[in-house]
Amino acid sequence: MCRLLAYVGDPILLAHLVLWPDRSIIKQSYDAQERKMNPSLPSHLCHGNLNGDGFGIGWYSQEGSDTSPCVFTSVTPAWNNDNLARLSRKITSQLIFAHVRAAYPGMPVSEQNCHPFMWGRYMWMHNGVVGGFSKIKRRIVALLSDEAYNTVASFHSDSAASFALFLHHLPSMTAPQSPDVLLQAMQEEMEATSETSLLNFVVSDGNTVIATRYVSPDTEEPASLYFAE
Amino acid sequence: MCRLLAYVGDPILLAHLVLWPDRSIIKQSYDAQERKMNPSLPSHLCHGNLNGDGFGIGWYSQEGSDTSPCVFTSVTPAWNNDNLARLSRKITSQLIFAHVRAAYPGMPVSEQNCHPFMWGRYMWMHNGVVGGFSKIKRRIVALLSDEAYNTVASFHSDSAASFALFLHHLPSMTAPQSPDVLLQAMQEEMEATSETSLLNFVVSDGNTVIATRYVSPDTEEPASLYFAE
Amino acid sequence: MCRLLAYVGDPILLAHLVLWPDRSIIKQSYDAQERKMNPSLPSHLCHGNLNGDGFGIGWYSQEGSDTSPCVFTSVTPAWNNDNLARLSRKITSQLIFAHVRAAYPGMPVSEQNCHPFMWGRYMWMHNGVVGGFSKIKRRIVALLSDEAYNTVASFHSDSAASFALFLHHLPSMTAPQSPDVLLQAMQEEMEATSETSLLNFVVSDGNTVIATRYVSPDTEEPASLYFAE
Amino acid sequence: MCRLLAYVGDPILLAHLVLWPDRSIIKQSYDAQERKMNPSLPSHLCHGNLNGDGFGIGWYSQEGSDTSPCVFTSVTPAWNNDNLARLSRKITSQLIFAHVRAAYPGMPVSEQNCHPFMWGRYMWMHNGVVGGFSKIKRRIVALLSDEAYNTVASFHSDSAASFALFLHHLPSMTAPQSPDVLLQAMQEEMEATSETSLLNFVVSDGNTVIATRYVSPDTEEPASLYFAE
Repeated sequence: MCRLLAYVGDPILLAHLVLWPDRSIIKQSYDAQERKMNPSLPSHLCHGNLNGDGFGIGWYSQEGSDTSPCVFTSVTPAWNNDNLARLSRKITSQLIFAHVRAAYPGMPVSEQNCHPFMWGRYMWMHNGVVGGFSKIKRRIVALLSDEAYNTVASFHSDSAASFALFLHHLPSMTAPQSPDVLLQAMQEEMEATSETSLLNFVVSDGNTVIATRYVSPDTEEPASLYFAE
Repeated sequence: MCRLLAYVGDPILLAHLVLWPDRSIIKQSYDAQERKMNPSLPSHLCHGNLNGDGFGIGWYSQEGSDTSPCVFTSVTPAWNNDNLARLSRKITSQLIFAHVRAAYPGMPVSEQNCHPFMWGRYMWMHNGVVGGFSKIKRRIVALLSDEAYNTVASFHSDSAASFALFLHHLPSMTAPQSPDVLLQAMQEEMEATSETSLLNFVVSDGNTVIATRYVSPDTEEPASLYFAE
Repeated sequence: MCRLLAYVGDPILLAHLVLWPDRSIIKQSYDAQERKMNPSLPSHLCHGNLNGDGFGIGWYSQEGSDTSPCVFTSVTPAWNNDNLARLSRKITSQLIFAHVRAAYPGMPVSEQNCHPFMWGRYMWMHNGVVGGFSKIKRRIVALLSDEAYNTVASFHSDSAASFALFLHHLPSMTAPQSPDVLLQAMQEEMEATSETSLLNFVVSDGNTVIATRYVSPDTEEPASLYFAE
Repeated sequence: MCRLLAYVGDPILLAHLVLWPDRSIIKQSYDAQERKMNPSLPSHLCHGNLNGDGFGIGWYSQEGSDTSPCVFTSVTPAWNNDNLARLSRKITSQLIFAHVRAAYPGMPVSEQNCHPFMWGRYMWMHNGVVGGFSKIKRRIVALLSDEAYNTVASFHSDSAASFALFLHHLPSMTAPQSPDVLLQAMQEEMEATSETSLLNFVVSDGNTVIATRYVSPDTEEPASLYFAE
């Protein structure tokens, strides 16, 4: 169960979101007071308010020759990463993602497993857990088109499989899509899960941002997600 | 296309294989004169005699309460890794694996992708490439029992999938097996590939070591593999 | 302000100290309830009960051709390090150090800055802070013999400088020393500090272990250090 | 002995220098045909045309609230670093440094030891070696003002000490300086060395770039350095 942040608006220095605020994403890496405990885990496997299993930032830029975002990930904690501190002081963007990770016990910590994930013009983050993922994984992966299957480095994590499933539900993975179509793909992606799940997803194509806050069954409390305009 | 080393015999300090010889595995990390170029790659993607995309060592030990080997992997090159130099000067074993990796272009470099892979009592290394893997991957993965499917962190690499397929062909993944049975599982694993492939595999259960040197089609030259007794 | 552990006794699997106990050093990496806050730091720079800025283990072994210990360090947190989990399940020793680090703000996180430090037959760990180190550093470093000056990779940290100063106070840095002589070198090393300091040091030559628990001024409470026989 | 690159001119995507050219800095990381062998090293310690001991990029940006550059460094080789590939495709600058490192044997590989170094408005890179550095290090470090002494994380490397010495020779480390003053500080810095040395330095304050190509004694060939306008 991680913490994440998305910003869309006037171009802003990343440090204003990542480094300097009282409740910055770096603060969330070592003191996330609202981090929800994974209900399927014994408490001794939950490392309290800690999101120290790597991190990632992503942003869209006017620079470069394609529509893809730029992503920087690392396996070390956000709070002691000098590259993160330096980059965030010198990069501005109008659409920014940031994510600090608390790996599910047994899940590998690698740069490839850090969010945001990217493919083509899309960025994807997840805070939560797809319940019973190990049991439904093969069924989910079998649904994917070859094109979607080949997008992500590994299907070991529920977050990566969810992103592939979202891409699978797009009419075209490469052509631009309207906000309505993105929303529908997100809904179809979320229908694939059935058990107790916490599905706070954020996706963007560089123009639209879709963020979900979802729990199943709805007798549970979803993970917190704040929204300001 | 990597380089690898396996030793079975009297207990020996790892440094005698890893650090000190003229053709040590560390030497192979920056000057592997017999590293075979991947025939399916354009030459500008082949980094000459270099195996600098991480490494791993594995060994069986009398210590500990189970039959599993011990594995140490890292994403940095073997030649500048202080932990490797220190560990290899102070650990002895009678059955040792070492592997320096040249990642296929586009394959992620992570500790989880470094060989040797381990599961239960087994260690596995690969030098070579399963030809056309991206095209046959879904078919191979579909063959696996759930138990074998869940063994490896990622099926993105041909080496990881090959290991899972080997485990799948064992009568039992947890019970000890005779050398003949291990050999048969290896043969069945290798039959799953059809295109141009270089399959130098090494597997051990702590007692037996099986090493293959194979190329398909047999008009090609296989990757070199030396054997001394 | 870190947490550390030293063991001397019958050979024991490292996992019994590092992985498995309720208050293992891994538990200390994310939930060190007695971690003392650095009195010279504003509270918002103290990351609570967290020691996630790298770690190290060291042990003496009968293997190998010299009297040096073996040390494994990493910049990632102890709680998610697969190499640590694997090594500690398969290595036994009669003299073991372990250390989880909370870096002083601004101090670099690198493998070379992780404890235990080693030189020749010696291992060294520190939990605490040399008060006003930035002001007395040049004076301390100037005291050192060339031989001691060249031992440690960096004098940026108070812990590394303290180790060099300890080595400097030995009659010979290479010849074996009696426990009394080691103790005296430790005392002379500690006299070099004057301001508010927390000096829990542990040093060993493979036979003797010296551990200090010290605070200056003595109106303060020293960092906790437990001792069992 | 490393390879380095500096660019000043119209804003350009970093990938045009780092990723895409035939002789990009990434190519230099695994195939630096003009890498000069260190004359003071036995040949078996020279890893041929390899600069795989970490890398760094730095650039000046109009973004952010101060005059400091942005620097990204990593201990892994440039050729397999996904963050480098992604960042360089999305960042433009009018003043860019890039450096691939071949560490002197025994020198630690850490992010802090990767070039470019930065302090305040300055970036610094070095390709070469200060001859007999271990013998003159204490004398050089003793020359430094406290302000210059405290700039760099470690004085273990000749490159870091050279940068501190350059800063020491500035009339003020914080006020802007004219090109003439920068040049003079560079000259005074270089006079501190006497033995066989290869001193290809590059320094910038965001406006001026000074690059040196120097060998001592002048009967030797300096390391290659190309210049295009």
